[in-house]
Amino acid sequence: MRKVVVGGAQLGPNQKTDSRARIVERMLVLLDQANSSGCTLVVFPELALTTFFPRWFMEKQSEIDQWFEASMPGPDTQPLFDRARLHNIAISFGYAELTPDGLHYNTSILTDQQGNIIARYRKIHLPGHSEFDSSRDFQHLEKRYFLPGDLGFPVTQAMGGRIGMCICNDRRWPETYRVMGLQGVEMILLGYNTPSFNSQKVTEGPEDRLFHNALVMQSGAYQNSSWVVGVAKAGIEDGFPLIGGSMIVNPDGRIVAAATTEDDELIVHDCDLDECNFGKETIFNFSRHRRIEHYGIITSQVGVLNGGD
Amino acid sequence: MRKVVVGGAQLGPNQKTDSRARIVERMLVLLDQANSSGCTLVVFPELALTTFFPRWFMEKQSEIDQWFEASMPGPDTQPLFDRARLHNIAISFGYAELTPDGLHYNTSILTDQQGNIIARYRKIHLPGHSEFDSSRDFQHLEKRYFLPGDLGFPVTQAMGGRIGMCICNDRRWPETYRVMGLQGVEMILLGYNTPSFNSQKVTEGPEDRLFHNALVMQSGAYQNSSWVVGVAKAGIEDGFPLIGGSMIVNPDGRIVAAATTEDDELIVHDCDLDECNFGKETIFNFSRHRRIEHYGIITSQVGVLNGGD
Repeated sequence: MRKVVVGGAQLGPNQKTDSRARIVERMLVLLDQANSSGCTLVVFPELALTTFFPRWFMEKQSEIDQWFEASMPGPDTQPLFDRARLHNIAISFGYAELTPDGLHYNTSILTDQQGNIIARYRKIHLPGHSEFDSSRDFQHLEKRYFLPGDLGFPVTQAMGGRIGMCICNDRRWPETYRVMGLQGVEMILLGYNTPSFNSQKVTEGPEDRLFHNALVMQSGAYQNSSWVVGVAKAGIEDGFPLIGGSMIVNPDGRIVAAATTEDDELIVHDCDLDECNFGKETIFNFSRHRRIEHYGIITSQVGVLNGGD
Repeated sequence: MRKVVVGGAQLGPNQKTDSRARIVERMLVLLDQANSSGCTLVVFPELALTTFFPRWFMEKQSEIDQWFEASMPGPDTQPLFDRARLHNIAISFGYAELTPDGLHYNTSILTDQQGNIIARYRKIHLPGHSEFDSSRDFQHLEKRYFLPGDLGFPVTQAMGGRIGMCICNDRRWPETYRVMGLQGVEMILLGYNTPSFNSQKVTEGPEDRLFHNALVMQSGAYQNSSWVVGVAKAGIEDGFPLIGGSMIVNPDGRIVAAATTEDDELIVHDCDLDECNFGKETIFNFSRHRRIEHYGIITSQVGVLNGGD
């Protein structure tokens, strides 16, 4: 038994006018709750420190950069690291990263239980678009504000097992889970900010969005025999609704803990990493069953080619 | 609108003592029903013509070969082709194929509406094992009796769209759907014979097996914006129970038709291939969003390597 008591720390909405300090205070409350629940790892959502700013079209770089963190920890986030260290809790959260070279990424980090950053992930599957799109109900400008991640999908030895990260839209892509699965991942941490309506199809509302959210995380978990911890920023943010639906999924694909609100809410599950073993050794024993000689176009071809037959 | 009225022709159990002729008669009844329902395409399960013989350990090649078809159509199967042609229905079904060279495959075919075979698939992800395994509750010797398929995952222009095939355990592997998705697949036909209990884990029963069955087909459909038609051979076959759960899944990942029995049963849905378009053009527009530079190990590495970080 390799036990990790995981807290999924869903956040309610962050309004545009909320300061980082005010948001971090809410995160500290969740960290204290997690400590009371015996958590050893707490996962916060994507872009935890700000509103989901890619819903607005901006041109001035200084206006854009106000949503980014130039250092981590920084003055506003240092209390998070201090509190986590105090409680002996490892944490993971997402934020907009501005590198010393002036590059912009949608990033998440993982710390050890002493508050040291031990892993970093930069979002690879950026959804949306890069120019103002008048055909949409609202904008989704991640391709404008972020570069695609340049760190691959790293899997890190931590918490007695192998821990991976991805962010939001990454969870819809089976390649995300498989690249980590091939590195023996046992727990995937991911945060998301998912609009409750499809900006390109008004009839696709929260019920559909929650269905897809669960479907992709449950199948990713099952097909790679890994825990998945998916954590939302939820609720009505600056007038735009985001789904909740934070959940912890076991390596059999089953939901074992789920949020019931669209506000700050901690979900907790006592995860045994050894539950990954059975699937990895039998039905998803990759070395016995995968047939890479037939997978070639997955990595040689980006888009659809109809000449396949 | 590109309409295909699909019939999923679930079969109840085929006992060891049932002749091919008797089984084909049941298939003809389902074909007639499908004709009454206006079907233009009917999908039968994996190994439709026989019992699921890989549950028995056999050593004598002549004993093994009795379960294989040396020609298709053959004398016993010609009536299927004739009836399909009469009804102007395209059909797909699975069988054990013995090639003129003496090679053995777990195969499925697709005909056009005139009864001509226009596509062939040979199962790539063979589950199970190749030698008698005393630790299992029952045997699953597909790796003994079949060679891994050598035809890739072909996608064929048919029924006004792009049709792909896979078989049983293939459906658990996201690579299966993706290789077809990259060829623009719009409808995936697949049959299965899935034991109601995991031979290596007695606590994994029919409820779990049906859950996984739905999970992988629904996610494969959604993540590739394709219809999926999954058809079982079901019920208690020679004393061994097989799950039913035949279903038609739309490109949004939703189940639109589902079998309710474990016997011969036709499920029907009027599928519009144009429903695939929205997903393929937006969230799963592969050429805009896939990042193959980070997928390398999916095709370069068969099993798990822990040195990923």
